[in-house]
Amino acid sequence: MKTEIITIGDEILIGQTVDTNSTWIANELNLIGIDVAKIVSISDNKEEIFKALYDAENYADLVLITGGLGPTDDDITKKALAEYFNTKLVQSKEVLEHVEAFASKRKVWMNERNIRQADILENSEIIQNEIGTAPGMKLKKNDVTFIAMPGVPFEMKRMMSNYIIPWLKENQIDQYIIHKLILTQGWPESRLAEYLESWEKNIPKEISIAYLPSPGIIKLRLTGKGNNKKLLEELIQDQVKKLEKLIPELICGYDSEKLEEIIGNLLKKENSQLSIAESCTGGNISHLLTSIPGSSEYFSGGVVAYSNKIKKDVLSVSKSNLIDYGAVSKEVVEEMATGVKNLYKTDFAIATSGIAGPTGGTEEKPVGTTWIAVASKDKVISKKYVFGNHRNRNIQMASITALNMLRKLILGLEI
Amino acid sequence: MKTEIITIGDEILIGQTVDTNSTWIANELNLIGIDVAKIVSISDNKEEIFKALYDAENYADLVLITGGLGPTDDDITKKALAEYFNTKLVQSKEVLEHVEAFASKRKVWMNERNIRQADILENSEIIQNEIGTAPGMKLKKNDVTFIAMPGVPFEMKRMMSNYIIPWLKENQIDQYIIHKLILTQGWPESRLAEYLESWEKNIPKEISIAYLPSPGIIKLRLTGKGNNKKLLEELIQDQVKKLEKLIPELICGYDSEKLEEIIGNLLKKENSQLSIAESCTGGNISHLLTSIPGSSEYFSGGVVAYSNKIKKDVLSVSKSNLIDYGAVSKEVVEEMATGVKNLYKTDFAIATSGIAGPTGGTEEKPVGTTWIAVASKDKVISKKYVFGNHRNRNIQMASITALNMLRKLILGLEI
Repeated sequence: MKTEIITIGDEILIGQTVDTNSTWIANELNLIGIDVAKIVSISDNKEEIFKALYDAENYADLVLITGGLGPTDDDITKKALAEYFNTKLVQSKEVLEHVEAFASKRKVWMNERNIRQADILENSEIIQNEIGTAPGMKLKKNDVTFIAMPGVPFEMKRMMSNYIIPWLKENQIDQYIIHKLILTQGWPESRLAEYLESWEKNIPKEISIAYLPSPGIIKLRLTGKGNNKKLLEELIQDQVKKLEKLIPELICGYDSEKLEEIIGNLLKKENSQLSIAESCTGGNISHLLTSIPGSSEYFSGGVVAYSNKIKKDVLSVSKSNLIDYGAVSKEVVEEMATGVKNLYKTDFAIATSGIAGPTGGTEEKPVGTTWIAVASKDKVISKKYVFGNHRNRNIQMASITALNMLRKLILGLEI
Repeated sequence: MKTEIITIGDEILIGQTVDTNSTWIANELNLIGIDVAKIVSISDNKEEIFKALYDAENYADLVLITGGLGPTDDDITKKALAEYFNTKLVQSKEVLEHVEAFASKRKVWMNERNIRQADILENSEIIQNEIGTAPGMKLKKNDVTFIAMPGVPFEMKRMMSNYIIPWLKENQIDQYIIHKLILTQGWPESRLAEYLESWEKNIPKEISIAYLPSPGIIKLRLTGKGNNKKLLEELIQDQVKKLEKLIPELICGYDSEKLEEIIGNLLKKENSQLSIAESCTGGNISHLLTSIPGSSEYFSGGVVAYSNKIKKDVLSVSKSNLIDYGAVSKEVVEEMATGVKNLYKTDFAIATSGIAGPTGGTEEKPVGTTWIAVASKDKVISKKYVFGNHRNRNIQMASITALNMLRKLILGLEI
């Protein structure tokens, strides 16, 4: 199925916004075996939209359009689509009710613009926008399916995940594609790839692999393609077992799991509470943990101690350790962990102290130097890391590394 | 000058790589007054390349092509260009010398692949690749200029900055483009657009506007196009002044400013310290503030109080208020703000308490209900908001709203 993505809006063309929507869509489609053949970005301009639609109609079988469905005057996609498809806009009672409910809940009054959001292309199928007011629309012309979605990333993503991907899976797939993700933590991509080189050479031809790096986590994606689903599943499972023998200490999760979720599940299972003392990570570990629904069940909270005074006054770190060893030290980070554990009366605790950068480094402790401690009822374990020069990357690397240290502590693995 | 960017390569189409090259090129061109009309991504496939070149030739005056110039077998751009333009590849002595010097410096053997890098399209103008082996090429057909560059970001950027941008500046510019961004906080896009409708109708024709929404912040972008740079600057400045009169309470910043940076600058100016007590935002406000280099100068830290017990024990919130009003209440959030301010001995404090969702809502306090308090030396101000159903969006909305309340408090504006 030849698939094209069209993004409409000036932000990308003037270089203000990176087109992450298309990347996300392409990746999601790839996961269900649909290759994107072309991605096109054009501006909010009727002639450009017409031309892009015409080209797409003569090129693709499936056309995914994002952007320009908002309530402001620069959003012209809906009008342009109506004109191109020689149809008209009609008010959808269903969408209007949704927009009204949406507005009333947010205490926003209904106005002409809101009401216009309920207009849809006649003969189009509505795709519900659960978290916004602009509905998606699906319509067919000469065997080509056009799907229009808002450009707001989280609205588009929800629509894709809940409606479009399931619909495509049911109707359009001609071969099986199976993915398995192995999450690794601890080694950089180049080291991992070199170590796995001979394994990679011997994987069966039905399976391809890709390294997906992000700060702190390298994902290994195994993809199997073919007509025999059961065989593919077995082939992938064989390779997963091989990897589990090759790099047991690096694997920290599978598929869409997040480390903050894995830890949540472990803590729930142990019926335990966690608290966190953050210096260099500045609240990011707490933020990651609390992004998971239901985290209040096992996460008591934490202290962001961004100054020595707070480390001393709130976390009971000893003045002498701060003076003798400095804030970025084994002694201080361990005191921070036990300090927050005692203050919050939790079973486990994490503490971080490091030099996130870009300034503040010394010859002895360069930017990126980070001490991380994890504590349980009966012990505290700390380790020193030297990450890089980039502040936000350092914060993310330290956060992920700290979460994985805790995971190992809870599971009784060597840290 | 109608300009199109074509990126060639599979990484973008399978969603593995975000197309940051096009964004960068578009931004650089925009800065010198060239609008990119279209961005197209296609795969390393001869037919696709032919089709894209044909479409571009009939659409644009300037076509910038990136990708597929490397030495491996999947790089077919050069061959495809030769065939499309009905010309042949010839070895360039100049490029060969460069490649040889390059190889010897890196202690890489010359091989057939390296030598092939010196092949260029006959009749094309070479664009030197100072930091790689694949040369850029420029050629003209029927008044359309085609420029091919490697896809490696560093190499492409160096080529653009050192050769192509200067050449365009000298030869091709016909107009100026000036942008101004106004950051607003507090109203949703539809309400803002309705309120500004009559203003929008009366802006001069040289200026266009766009609304760029993100959770918590709506950016208004004013774009001026024309031949008289000074006039454009004045016209935009006039409109900015008008907006500052129309929506003074909504404007919270300009251009690339971030709210967390603006607050940092205000606190530095006031020589003041800030602390934060976070319940529903779970550390995200601290995370935003500490993502700014140098934030330890004005940010002491904070307490993530994810349970009532911690609110009581660490932040000294009274038990009776927690029982009588619940954690998500004016009474409790104000006590949280003064609690953290006293504990951290800071000049200012922020506190948040809300129901981030997806569960935990009641009829009286639905998911999204959030109390936010800001405190200075002599007062505490709190406000209730009802955001939406989406957990991470609620966290982000509450964080941005809280930062803006603090901004107003510091500046003595009405909250």
